[in-house]
Amino acid sequence: MQTVILLFQCADQKGIVAKVSDFIFQHAGNIITADQYSTDPENGHFFLRIEFYIDEILHDKQSLEAALGPIAGHFDAEWKMYYKHERLRMGILVSKPDHCLVDLLYRWRSGELDVDIPFVISNYEGHRKIVKQCSIPFYFIPATKDNRREEEILKRASRDSDFLVLARYMLILSGDFMDEYGKDIINIHHSFLPSFKGSAPYRQAFERGVKVIGATAHFVTETLDEGAIISQIVERVSHKDGVDDLERKGKNMEKQALSHAVYNYIDYRIIKCRNKTIVF
Amino acid sequence: MQTVILLFQCADQKGIVAKVSDFIFQHAGNIITADQYSTDPENGHFFLRIEFYIDEILHDKQSLEAALGPIAGHFDAEWKMYYKHERLRMGILVSKPDHCLVDLLYRWRSGELDVDIPFVISNYEGHRKIVKQCSIPFYFIPATKDNRREEEILKRASRDSDFLVLARYMLILSGDFMDEYGKDIINIHHSFLPSFKGSAPYRQAFERGVKVIGATAHFVTETLDEGAIISQIVERVSHKDGVDDLERKGKNMEKQALSHAVYNYIDYRIIKCRNKTIVF
Amino acid sequence: MQTVILLFQCADQKGIVAKVSDFIFQHAGNIITADQYSTDPENGHFFLRIEFYIDEILHDKQSLEAALGPIAGHFDAEWKMYYKHERLRMGILVSKPDHCLVDLLYRWRSGELDVDIPFVISNYEGHRKIVKQCSIPFYFIPATKDNRREEEILKRASRDSDFLVLARYMLILSGDFMDEYGKDIINIHHSFLPSFKGSAPYRQAFERGVKVIGATAHFVTETLDEGAIISQIVERVSHKDGVDDLERKGKNMEKQALSHAVYNYIDYRIIKCRNKTIVF
Amino acid sequence: MQTVILLFQCADQKGIVAKVSDFIFQHAGNIITADQYSTDPENGHFFLRIEFYIDEILHDKQSLEAALGPIAGHFDAEWKMYYKHERLRMGILVSKPDHCLVDLLYRWRSGELDVDIPFVISNYEGHRKIVKQCSIPFYFIPATKDNRREEEILKRASRDSDFLVLARYMLILSGDFMDEYGKDIINIHHSFLPSFKGSAPYRQAFERGVKVIGATAHFVTETLDEGAIISQIVERVSHKDGVDDLERKGKNMEKQALSHAVYNYIDYRIIKCRNKTIVF
Repeated sequence: MQTVILLFQCADQKGIVAKVSDFIFQHAGNIITADQYSTDPENGHFFLRIEFYIDEILHDKQSLEAALGPIAGHFDAEWKMYYKHERLRMGILVSKPDHCLVDLLYRWRSGELDVDIPFVISNYEGHRKIVKQCSIPFYFIPATKDNRREEEILKRASRDSDFLVLARYMLILSGDFMDEYGKDIINIHHSFLPSFKGSAPYRQAFERGVKVIGATAHFVTETLDEGAIISQIVERVSHKDGVDDLERKGKNMEKQALSHAVYNYIDYRIIKCRNKTIVF
Repeated sequence: MQTVILLFQCADQKGIVAKVSDFIFQHAGNIITADQYSTDPENGHFFLRIEFYIDEILHDKQSLEAALGPIAGHFDAEWKMYYKHERLRMGILVSKPDHCLVDLLYRWRSGELDVDIPFVISNYEGHRKIVKQCSIPFYFIPATKDNRREEEILKRASRDSDFLVLARYMLILSGDFMDEYGKDIINIHHSFLPSFKGSAPYRQAFERGVKVIGATAHFVTETLDEGAIISQIVERVSHKDGVDDLERKGKNMEKQALSHAVYNYIDYRIIKCRNKTIVF
Repeated sequence: MQTVILLFQCADQKGIVAKVSDFIFQHAGNIITADQYSTDPENGHFFLRIEFYIDEILHDKQSLEAALGPIAGHFDAEWKMYYKHERLRMGILVSKPDHCLVDLLYRWRSGELDVDIPFVISNYEGHRKIVKQCSIPFYFIPATKDNRREEEILKRASRDSDFLVLARYMLILSGDFMDEYGKDIINIHHSFLPSFKGSAPYRQAFERGVKVIGATAHFVTETLDEGAIISQIVERVSHKDGVDDLERKGKNMEKQALSHAVYNYIDYRIIKCRNKTIVF
Repeated sequence: MQTVILLFQCADQKGIVAKVSDFIFQHAGNIITADQYSTDPENGHFFLRIEFYIDEILHDKQSLEAALGPIAGHFDAEWKMYYKHERLRMGILVSKPDHCLVDLLYRWRSGELDVDIPFVISNYEGHRKIVKQCSIPFYFIPATKDNRREEEILKRASRDSDFLVLARYMLILSGDFMDEYGKDIINIHHSFLPSFKGSAPYRQAFERGVKVIGATAHFVTETLDEGAIISQIVERVSHKDGVDDLERKGKNMEKQALSHAVYNYIDYRIIKCRNKTIVF
């Protein structure tokens, strides 16, 4: 038995769930979980995620996809089918701060993150040891603000990864990079967006005197820190907390927000809907 | 157009979603939201809540129920259909502490709680004024530990309410009361269950030196504070907080946990599953 | 025995605590709690709040103040002494939304907020009944965007209140108003500042797709929503929450953030320090 | 300049703060932070933590202690003075689960935990590599339920550590062990105590259907999971979360609760007060 995940979206209309669930039933599938969301039952957009068991021998992926095609066509839907056992390949880009990197690697080694890590690219040579200890290829690409070496990064990333994670990568990726890469990029921003975009957010938070700080995992877009938000973690602070304390507490939240986003992403639970996300 | 809520549960098996959603499609219904949960896709129990629009003139409730009958029979399912515009009747029992009562009345007056309140019964005469200001019938029944006057309460409650809320009712209801009432009773317990059952939970929490306290809304069963948990709210405390502070913070949480439970209950989002709840 | 609260601030230097606590000891006072904070032990600013018992007959307020004068002078300190039993007078300004008003009145009636409420001023006549039920004077001043009637408000507020609370007051107060009033004004803003300043913050939050929303109590300054933050409450939301849900959850947080700010303010626990607050 | 931390406790009485802060002033010390707490200003117990700068050359620790002696004697106080630059030695005991171990080691390597780690003792040989990579001595002591090998552990722990951390150590330490060790032992329990003591707390939480789970760092006493609570972290869960999910979320909280407890402990911020803690 295989577990299949189906993502399906189209203009909201009658009969979608009926037709799609009947399709699964006709192929002797057993629904494990189904989640749906409509931006508005009248003239809105409809999103569906269904996870189901199916007998792989009777129904291979190709024949399943062929069978679903006409149904999806009928609803003018976008859709995609995934086999749970096929792991996504997550490329990691990271600058000097290592807390998110170490956390991702630990969760991956311990089996919490069911993903492949084809490479870690960094402009900080010092991460080599810890990455090699995990038997993951490490590439030192000394990108700087003035020379971002995006071609080198792209060469590796385009071929070997299904999505990228910026685990505290301090350089801004260009629109060209994003266009050429063409797949999802997840970033961790060390503030509660939309507050404190840009640099030194903990200092900004300290200066503003907020009583709660946060960290935000989001998809990367060309506009800095404006991409769709996936996950946000917050924590109470007080006047006693200096910038150092905010940073220390913040690192803790960054790890959690980023790993939470990755955890759901690799289980196909995150759907982008314009500048927002649906997290099923 | 009417909004209908369907609750449906049975042994998990193939084709449930397909058949039920097809039934809605055949009646020209449009699904607004659908939630499902299975305790285990293999041999587990399956729960479904579907909210859909339907044309009341073409399909009245009776004919809908008649049409669903055979499908439910096929799956050997328990099910119930509700019209959203039909309000539940929530009876309130309350002793002297008035914070939950006042909060429920305010949320009801402001339209947040879409429910009818047929009566407030109290063993504290002092609540009469505030209840009458809301034009709700108030009954003073001077129940005590030694004479719980359950017959009087039942007389009113059985006929006039669809469920009861114990908004800080200090007397334990007997098993006989529960059997005879036969409908749901929601209680607010002023601790994070299962910690600190029974009386004076804030004092217990203070004595134990916990760093987080809570409040729990749960269904009432014969065994004190053992019923299925619906909603829990927690808050951080410190050594500086005396019993008074815990009570003050606790009252705030009690109001929220109870109103959250009621809010979901009257929207048919809460399903009991043995000693647990599913909150869709 | 009286409880006295002393607030004391000056440039940080050696011996402050020693001298001030010796002063209390010399007057046979017994410290209940003492809190202090220095922005920086080297060349920073020092803040002290001490609550102590004292025998009122032996040492009346005047003689205490006279005795502290020279010590404060030595450190070039600003300071103030309060008797706990002397209640502050909290004036309330409120527009149509009543959830914060009702919450403040309830907490006041139940004894949680140990404060006098000399008046409620509103540009919505409909609050009269609930305010009168509390035996609090109610003034309907039909202020609008085009005619804010600040003179009328000031006339009442200046004489009768020690501070003002804007319990969802929809008009912006002018700089002239603030100058002339000259005392503290606490506002509740229905977002997690600095995110979503200005109007319709829940809609802004919805459009941005944040996963956590909040409410912020802050001091009012001439610049909209830029005053020192006192208290922030946050809550998790998801893609399922529409603007309505955000508003409903937000109202709950607004009540808590505002009452938390007032609770601490009237106990002299909040000290402004430029654009920030110290909450002891 | 040195930073000194003074912990001081005695029966509450007049003049303590005055005398102790005067002592610091007389030695030209500059208070950085001072925290105090009294269980009750009338006949309660008083606790004080003061952190101050002092000129080490003019006033060495010995002379400071000699000078404080008579003052402490006057109040019949227990007290202790620490130099911030003198690091505590934290011994770690751990069984097979490695998430807390890895987290402590990372926070230590990154400088967040300013402590020495003289050894890691485990009954699981597999941790050797990761511990050696940190250049920390690792001792494999194959303790089991039937042969706890406490003598071997004690031999190492008594001499080389100032306190012990049980970073998920699955064996219960005997009363004899505790008596002989005689110093503090911090444990992480994987539930929101006092709920779900003993084994398999996540399964217990799942069976009970709680809506919030937690982790608790506490001092170890002879009675299982009854020691004074230091730190508790909680997180919302739902009916969708299986035992696996609770464990995954729980591990995240265990790391945070334990590191939070250690962080404060090594800064001398935690004071035991019967079965409770004061966390300054």
